[in-house]
Amino acid sequence: MTESSPTAAVLIIGDEVLSGRTQDTNLNTIARFLAALGIDLMEARTVGDRKAQIVEALNALRAGHDYVFTTGGIGPTHDDITADAVATAFGVTLPEHPAAVAILEKRYGAEFNAPRRRMARIPEGGTLITNPVTDAPGFQIGNVFVMAGVPKIMTAMLEDVAPRLRAGAVVHARTLRVSGVGEGDVAELLTAAARANRDLSFGSYPFGHGTVGEVGTNLVVRGREAAKVDAAVTALLAALGAAGIEAHSSP
Amino acid sequence: MTESSPTAAVLIIGDEVLSGRTQDTNLNTIARFLAALGIDLMEARTVGDRKAQIVEALNALRAGHDYVFTTGGIGPTHDDITADAVATAFGVTLPEHPAAVAILEKRYGAEFNAPRRRMARIPEGGTLITNPVTDAPGFQIGNVFVMAGVPKIMTAMLEDVAPRLRAGAVVHARTLRVSGVGEGDVAELLTAAARANRDLSFGSYPFGHGTVGEVGTNLVVRGREAAKVDAAVTALLAALGAAGIEAHSSP
Repeated sequence: MTESSPTAAVLIIGDEVLSGRTQDTNLNTIARFLAALGIDLMEARTVGDRKAQIVEALNALRAGHDYVFTTGGIGPTHDDITADAVATAFGVTLPEHPAAVAILEKRYGAEFNAPRRRMARIPEGGTLITNPVTDAPGFQIGNVFVMAGVPKIMTAMLEDVAPRLRAGAVVHARTLRVSGVGEGDVAELLTAAARANRDLSFGSYPFGHGTVGEVGTNLVVRGREAAKVDAAVTALLAALGAAGIEAHSSP
Repeated sequence: MTESSPTAAVLIIGDEVLSGRTQDTNLNTIARFLAALGIDLMEARTVGDRKAQIVEALNALRAGHDYVFTTGGIGPTHDDITADAVATAFGVTLPEHPAAVAILEKRYGAEFNAPRRRMARIPEGGTLITNPVTDAPGFQIGNVFVMAGVPKIMTAMLEDVAPRLRAGAVVHARTLRVSGVGEGDVAELLTAAARANRDLSFGSYPFGHGTVGEVGTNLVVRGREAAKVDAAVTALLAALGAAGIEAHSSP
């Protein structure tokens, strides 16, 4: 929203998301995490466990954004090919990382077999991301952060990622709840408000479809300067009131 | 998975998904819908309410897949720019569609104002997709299906979309639940099974992380020939049993 705010993209990796077996929640978790840091999430892609597809998507995203966050495909099984794909995308080798080997040896002891050893392969130049849940680390290489697909582990890894990111100005958001009318009834006022405040964004999200009397619309005003957001909300409330439309600020 | 199965991509459109305000569920709904039709969902992208970004993503996806499904951005407000972006992507005009005007006039009567009239603009050559929830239609143009972002409406629109699609051979999936061991304990057997059955896919999804004794792994075998899937499951169960690992078929 401002030139100085970092931008980011997310790459969700996993056949299980595309087959419908799994409802992804990592994108939403990362989106909220980035919003709190004032980093603008610009796009996300979901791809399958196919190396060429991962490489292509990753190279497109890392060239276009300050940060890329990937989830999925870093376990011990044959379908876990994210580290291979990231190494290929960066044109580097995929050696065992001594610290990763040590972490996994300590966790698994006598059960540290060949498949688990695969999880110690980190693209050359990469640094580890701590996994406080199951130990097997993620990694950072360049502007790319490679994390687990299991939500509990991915969320925990973000703790180690946060200090590595340049924060931007946080976006302030306020919601106005307008009951009893549809989006079409507030659209003109909203358009006028958007035109009068080009550095803010105005969203409109209907609720309660299909039942007369229950319909309504949530209007969301977003921007990096809290005072401007507040002023726009005050002006919008006044304009709605003048049009006989009841609205109230929602937490 | 076979050459003759149609492929598809999904394009999720909306700032509210990227800001973290909204947890998308439409991708999962569409993924399950396509799986039941034997259509392979290959990738998904999520973009904001930015016209150039929508146009670029849509043109990339529609060139690469048999079908593209978009959700979001077809309401009456200024941030609803999907129809404009689709028209630009296809290089066609965006006139009012007479049947769409009639549908909306009937629904809104005296409240059929200019913002609502925007929802009757359909890219030239497009055909309507019925919206049984709030009437405002989606549309199809070429291999692109443009649907609402509200999950209830999007899901209802799929009913009208289904008969327009060429179905493929449905993918059969069976899950083996392996309790008490981690992914790393079954990885070698799974790799061997995958090598022996190159026309099937084998996935591994751990559960119960971080607490010893509760860990386990779901193994998913997928393929278009049910008999082959069943045979692979039987062989995998035998191999697991020979290795002293308890597993059972899960519904």
